[in-house]
Amino acid sequence: MLAQLIALDWGTTSLRAYKLGADGLVLEQRSLSSGIMQLPKTPRLIKGQRCANGFELAFDEACGDWLDAQPELPVIACGMVGSAQGWREAVYCDTPANVANLGHSLQVVRSLSGVDVHIVPGVIQRSHLPNVMRGEETQVLGALQNLRAGANSDLLIGLPGSHSKWVEVADGCIVHFDTFMTGEIFAVLSEHSILGRTQQKGASFDGQAFDRGVQVALSVDGEIGPLSTLFSARSLGLTGELGASAQADYLSGLLIGHELSALAQTQRRRRNSAHLPAVVLIGNDQLCARYSRALDACGFDRVTLAEQATERGLWQLAAAAGLITKTPSR
Amino acid sequence: MLAQLIALDWGTTSLRAYKLGADGLVLEQRSLSSGIMQLPKTPRLIKGQRCANGFELAFDEACGDWLDAQPELPVIACGMVGSAQGWREAVYCDTPANVANLGHSLQVVRSLSGVDVHIVPGVIQRSHLPNVMRGEETQVLGALQNLRAGANSDLLIGLPGSHSKWVEVADGCIVHFDTFMTGEIFAVLSEHSILGRTQQKGASFDGQAFDRGVQVALSVDGEIGPLSTLFSARSLGLTGELGASAQADYLSGLLIGHELSALAQTQRRRRNSAHLPAVVLIGNDQLCARYSRALDACGFDRVTLAEQATERGLWQLAAAAGLITKTPSR
Repeated sequence: MLAQLIALDWGTTSLRAYKLGADGLVLEQRSLSSGIMQLPKTPRLIKGQRCANGFELAFDEACGDWLDAQPELPVIACGMVGSAQGWREAVYCDTPANVANLGHSLQVVRSLSGVDVHIVPGVIQRSHLPNVMRGEETQVLGALQNLRAGANSDLLIGLPGSHSKWVEVADGCIVHFDTFMTGEIFAVLSEHSILGRTQQKGASFDGQAFDRGVQVALSVDGEIGPLSTLFSARSLGLTGELGASAQADYLSGLLIGHELSALAQTQRRRRNSAHLPAVVLIGNDQLCARYSRALDACGFDRVTLAEQATERGLWQLAAAAGLITKTPSR
Repeated sequence: MLAQLIALDWGTTSLRAYKLGADGLVLEQRSLSSGIMQLPKTPRLIKGQRCANGFELAFDEACGDWLDAQPELPVIACGMVGSAQGWREAVYCDTPANVANLGHSLQVVRSLSGVDVHIVPGVIQRSHLPNVMRGEETQVLGALQNLRAGANSDLLIGLPGSHSKWVEVADGCIVHFDTFMTGEIFAVLSEHSILGRTQQKGASFDGQAFDRGVQVALSVDGEIGPLSTLFSARSLGLTGELGASAQADYLSGLLIGHELSALAQTQRRRRNSAHLPAVVLIGNDQLCARYSRALDACGFDRVTLAEQATERGLWQLAAAAGLITKTPSR
């Protein structure tokens, strides 16, 4: 099958490239470590010209051969490649944001080989405490494609990660979202704080320790908040109640439990209802498995996983931008 | 005046030595950087013996000459020197803990020069989430000495620091305490997370930015908790609403605001009253000034600073242990 689109998911630490055929079918995909913070540095020839630009080098590695075979293929990219530190800045679009207005706001950078790369802008919510996302907007729109119309309003889309995002949607639009720095805080505490010193790393996932952390966050003791409960990852170790190999997963459960407890409380307040929305998770399998366990403990009882959200989102946006002729959805 | 006691406040990163005269009067004091995590390493002769032990070297530097002049002086020490990583472990005493039971539980290590160093044990509270302190117990007991009898029950003693402690007292006893890792979290986020990358460091204290952070923590937006509001230190920077030189103090205010907001809520619940207790702060002047501002914003309207808490606490404990003949308190 002939390809119709090259779609790039280009983040801080990785670059994933998809060759998509009719209807967005994935014909081939690649994963490179050339995120915008770790671009290739060794100069080489591209189309006969010596090139030292890391973005050009990574782009050529990711899909140069696909473009040699089909030079007219359109290219779309999402993620940190559009940030101020990226290849070309694509200014944030305001909420509410949907496929149409993001698809009409692509920023173009022309590569050394003469190919236009269309970059998806991030989304900004200009609330009292502003929120921003880059890359996640594309995943959310890709996940929405698979949902029945009308299912949106009772839905929360979760994207666990270094900075997890929780996105409210309505009528196909991203209308509101919150950010939690849970993943990055777990990483810096484990690597650089006193809590990391007694952690025995590299053990397999300890579900019991993780669940215990979640339960502490949800308990009366947890009401004092994470700045205080975090210390229990150390003090329970000192009293011999938490072994070294259990400490990392206990801390992970504690932090994710505090995130989801705050999320549930905020959702109930905003919706003025004790009823919690259905959740669709987008992200890597291991992290989504952790969040699924903790969501269940927090009372979110309808949780599903979205698949191929990024490539589907990029396909939709390319169609909205007129880069491809969209065939009817299945 | 002849000295009666050498008192050491020996923590992780510093060692303070006091030569105390009658009634605990400070005759001389020294501050060294020889905390237990940064002990001297260069071997030298002590009393004619080659010595490479960091604790011995630091001890000799801190007060060897005082002991040469008055060899019979008793020595007492508090802080991390009594931890498992210290000179000699002094096992935690359980709450409730007061001058009498801590003073009767000193752990002795004999130095190379034949001097007994009496180490104050820390305190442990064996609650569901256990809490521990080392060094702070001595400061609390020192601060209590200056308070009128009976003033205890409506009192909270705060010790800001890497791990700040909030201590409830009754009848001269430490009965309950909470730990918040606020200071260490501020440090690791500023040094190792994305929030630090845009902070312009070294600026003088920006009270407006600090107060703004406190207010966000106390606002409706702050109810989502610190794992989420922290991201505003970045997003307000992205939107140009928070300058680089203001970001560190904003983050400091945000974290301290969340700590004190949780503390106030916990105190109201435990006391089953909207009334908040009086606060006595113990710690370095700059940090206490930050906490005083934030305490005021949180509704704690009676805040005072304790002075010479450590040396007074060590004096009391030495008296209880019979190391000195206690003269009547002023």
